[in-house]
Amino acid sequence: MRVVLLCRYDGSNYHGFQIQPNNNTIQEEIEKSLKKINKKDVRLYMSGRTDSGVHAYGQVLHFDTDLNIPDEAWVKALNATIPKDIRIVGATSASEDFHVRYNSTQKTYYYKLHIGREVDPFLLNYVGKHSFDFNFEKAQEALQYFIGEHDFSSFCSKNSSVEDKVRTIYSLTMEKDLINPNIVNFEITGNGFLYNMVRIIIGTIQNVAAGKYEANYVKEILEKKERQFAGPKADAAGLYLKEVLYDDDKINKFINNSLKAYCNK
Amino acid sequence: MRVVLLCRYDGSNYHGFQIQPNNNTIQEEIEKSLKKINKKDVRLYMSGRTDSGVHAYGQVLHFDTDLNIPDEAWVKALNATIPKDIRIVGATSASEDFHVRYNSTQKTYYYKLHIGREVDPFLLNYVGKHSFDFNFEKAQEALQYFIGEHDFSSFCSKNSSVEDKVRTIYSLTMEKDLINPNIVNFEITGNGFLYNMVRIIIGTIQNVAAGKYEANYVKEILEKKERQFAGPKADAAGLYLKEVLYDDDKINKFINNSLKAYCNK
Repeated sequence: MRVVLLCRYDGSNYHGFQIQPNNNTIQEEIEKSLKKINKKDVRLYMSGRTDSGVHAYGQVLHFDTDLNIPDEAWVKALNATIPKDIRIVGATSASEDFHVRYNSTQKTYYYKLHIGREVDPFLLNYVGKHSFDFNFEKAQEALQYFIGEHDFSSFCSKNSSVEDKVRTIYSLTMEKDLINPNIVNFEITGNGFLYNMVRIIIGTIQNVAAGKYEANYVKEILEKKERQFAGPKADAAGLYLKEVLYDDDKINKFINNSLKAYCNK
Repeated sequence: MRVVLLCRYDGSNYHGFQIQPNNNTIQEEIEKSLKKINKKDVRLYMSGRTDSGVHAYGQVLHFDTDLNIPDEAWVKALNATIPKDIRIVGATSASEDFHVRYNSTQKTYYYKLHIGREVDPFLLNYVGKHSFDFNFEKAQEALQYFIGEHDFSSFCSKNSSVEDKVRTIYSLTMEKDLINPNIVNFEITGNGFLYNMVRIIIGTIQNVAAGKYEANYVKEILEKKERQFAGPKADAAGLYLKEVLYDDDKINKFINNSLKAYCNK
């Protein structure tokens, strides 16, 4: 049986999602727990990796198992053994041809950017840092150039092995945080993202806001199709994988309901 | 010269404020920085210790120095070398007879209590946990019994060496968090607090809210003057030292202005 999990984590204390030798990762913690329950090695698949320090409200995972356990029991059994800063929010069964990575049609990320020289100690792991001037109007103007279908080669880390770098951004919004006016919240939705693409987009918007180049230079950066022309990648701490959606209504309903139910627990 | 510091910290990664062998503490970090600047050992005094995992918005500290450095330069020099989850918010000079511990006249603490079985990964280090029923009305009823002058022997950890256990609570309020309805925010102000007193008061209110005893039993607990009759101490993670005030208008003005200015940086 294939089981799909919705997973939320504070990435502050992990070297990212994907398993690696000599470093603690989120995948390792969940696979250890799956091994205990299944009494054998179980491979966990993710919708997409998150880097060291990146967070998730709605990471989607799957694994295969011979055990026949009710959905809610998977949630309880896993949460009983994984660290408290990783929580399984929901579980559901899926058909054998459903894959959390290859069947995804849409992803949404949050980015929280803190403007100012001093970051509050309580926000340190939860916001990216911007220490220069931040021209809100210029940043706003830059957003439009990312929307639509583009070759995002300039916005992809060089060590990516992906061939096709064309992606479509459906929306990219920016607004001041209602509670803390030093924080600017971005939300970006697309059909898929290249390695470090969100962080390089935010880093480029930071350069526009700081006056390093004009907003319409983003058009040129896209046309150059080379990483060196875009801005630096923004800090990992500000990035949150918010939601992944699929070509499968049942899975999408599961994701939406689980996210809602968790907030009322 | 005596220098007074206002200090804010996320206590998650420290074994409390007070220096101790083999464990990292907030005092150790600041004293290390003071030693670098002063080129000799400098003893740092605190308004009151905070335990492992307890936070502070407005801890007040003092030290003596031969250096004649402007207030703002102390802030910059210290913040440049101490960890980012500890921030010096302001500095000012004081007379040689001012002592951050002995001259304090009033302290205020926040306590954030999370109601529910599952704590959000992002809140883990920042709220206390309450997994049982929480009867808001009964908890509200219990608050009044703490207000006023009482012998708080029942609300003091046994390993305290303080003789006089009479303290006055000026106010104790409770309200649901505006953003997260699973969180109840307490604010308590008094002329001073015994060791673990706030956490034992909250733990006792938790017992009332969970139905372990009636609200008016708090009166009896106070009369018994023995630790065993009160509730357990609430989790450290929910506790924040908010503000300390003094018998010194200049220092109080410095504290208020620094707290305000920091929020607008």
